[in-house]
Amino acid sequence: MERGEKLYEGKAKVLFATEDPNLLIQYFKDDATAFNGVKKGTIADKGVLNNLISTRLFTILEAVGIPTHLEERLSDREQLVHRVNILPVEVVVRNLVAGSMAKRLGMEEGTPLPRPVVEFYHKSDELDDPMVTVDHIEVFGWAKEREIEEMMEYAHRINDVLIAYFANIDIRLVDYKLEFGRLATNPSELVLADEISPDSCRLWDLHTNEKLDKDRFRRDLGGVEEAYQQVVERMGLKR
Amino acid sequence: MERGEKLYEGKAKVLFATEDPNLLIQYFKDDATAFNGVKKGTIADKGVLNNLISTRLFTILEAVGIPTHLEERLSDREQLVHRVNILPVEVVVRNLVAGSMAKRLGMEEGTPLPRPVVEFYHKSDELDDPMVTVDHIEVFGWAKEREIEEMMEYAHRINDVLIAYFANIDIRLVDYKLEFGRLATNPSELVLADEISPDSCRLWDLHTNEKLDKDRFRRDLGGVEEAYQQVVERMGLKR
Ligand SMILES: Nc1ncnc2c1ncn2[C@@H]1O[C@H](COP(=O)(O)OP(=O)(O)OP(=O)(O)O)[C@@H](O)[C@H]1O
Ligand SMILES: Nc1ncnc2c1ncn2[C@@H]1O[C@H](COP(=O)(O)OP(=O)(O)OP(=O)(O)O)[C@@H](O)[C@H]1O
Ligand SMILES: [Mg+2]
Ligand SMILES: [Mg+2]
Repeated sequence: MERGEKLYEGKAKVLFATEDPNLLIQYFKDDATAFNGVKKGTIADKGVLNNLISTRLFTILEAVGIPTHLEERLSDREQLVHRVNILPVEVVVRNLVAGSMAKRLGMEEGTPLPRPVVEFYHKSDELDDPMVTVDHIEVFGWAKEREIEEMMEYAHRINDVLIAYFANIDIRLVDYKLEFGRLATNPSELVLADEISPDSCRLWDLHTNEKLDKDRFRRDLGGVEEAYQQVVERMGLKR
Repeated sequence: MERGEKLYEGKAKVLFATEDPNLLIQYFKDDATAFNGVKKGTIADKGVLNNLISTRLFTILEAVGIPTHLEERLSDREQLVHRVNILPVEVVVRNLVAGSMAKRLGMEEGTPLPRPVVEFYHKSDELDDPMVTVDHIEVFGWAKEREIEEMMEYAHRINDVLIAYFANIDIRLVDYKLEFGRLATNPSELVLADEISPDSCRLWDLHTNEKLDKDRFRRDLGGVEEAYQQVVERMGLKR
């Protein structure tokens, strides 16, 4: 598959057309942004590492029956994916309090949640991705009731799989963001899209709580590349 | 019933003990605040008007079977109410987009919602009453699952009653905030508490959309007392 026309350039990835209108190439960049694009930078080889990580995680999820957009990893920075219409909703799954939840609710980072919490945010850069309720999603037509239920169900199943997977390599899965989309070839089928990587997850060392994710970049903690590299290594992936 | 010890002074009301430990006097002040206390002022006779309005609305709701804290109106500014433990959750019901929803979601004020939307906020002045999900309420123990369901059910029934009541006096019920509490005498019984008044509702003239509520104070629109007085008059209440 060769890259065709550039369709969309986002903050971390670029989407290209292919000769098949239903397949896209997702190209992973090294660009890093935080706080809705206010902070900008580059993380050396991040694109290569995230492609490896996300490909492996999506492959594992496919294997347990979660439908995803992934067709295959094509190269260092490229994935072949099924074209979807992304729902304008980000699904955040949390196992411990951190980040915006800690701030909004005045709780300490690292407080364990008695059970996983799923939150929805409306994808909108202008509005700074506001948190929304299921009611908002329904009345504003961002997703159908059935799709919301499906996303919640998938989120919980994904969480079970990923918690266990990461725990096995001594990583605590604190929280992460998922995106879902309707398959271009069959809009009634919802699949997991976008990526799952240290850009979109909080991953802490199980023993030391050392951060192995984009918070190192957001908070200027240093060792950013090393953290992503560490995740790749623990996952047993080779560049 | 005579006023005993002052138990709590809020921004708009004062709670006093009575000789019965399970009954309180809710005293309505003229003080008005907005933006979590940042803006302060007084609205002449607001306490008297809100007491009249809230007493009538709670009486109507009691009559259709919604349990409330109201025992009786005692005087111009006083209500006798059943003591409750207020759940640290504000229930907001919206029929049209306005206020914080318009701002958060980038929508125009006055956009009708295809169906009523119920939102929950965590009562916390320090945190500026953040919007929360049902999951947050449950995992942080602010209310039990059964209580959340009960609040939602009550909210929808209250909405039916109040929409119809206000429409009949040419007022559009745009949105409003409810508080619920566990009866001191029986913590397993949840009742509607606090007040329902132009302080806690958005009420627009059905034909002109003129604001008849605290937004006149918040937004310096003038005619604040007249708006509250207008609601009292349309409700057929006499001071
Ligand atoms: N299979 C897919 N089909 C179509 N779009 C996709 C697919 N997978 C992911 N996307 C979208 O492609 C874009 C990937 O780019 P990137 O993640 O860099 O965007 P971004 O800067 O985060 O911006 P935003 O997500 O707000 O659009 C995202 O908009 C994502 O929702
Ligand atoms: N029946 C009741 N029993 C006990 N407390 C009540 C009852 N009804 C209302 N309250 C509480 O009494 C207080 C009324 O005061 P007011 O509305 O002025 O408070 P406020 O300034 O809005 O502050 P806050 O609501 O954040 O405490 C509120 O805290 C309200 O939750
Ligand atoms: Mg993205
Ligand atoms: Mg109050």
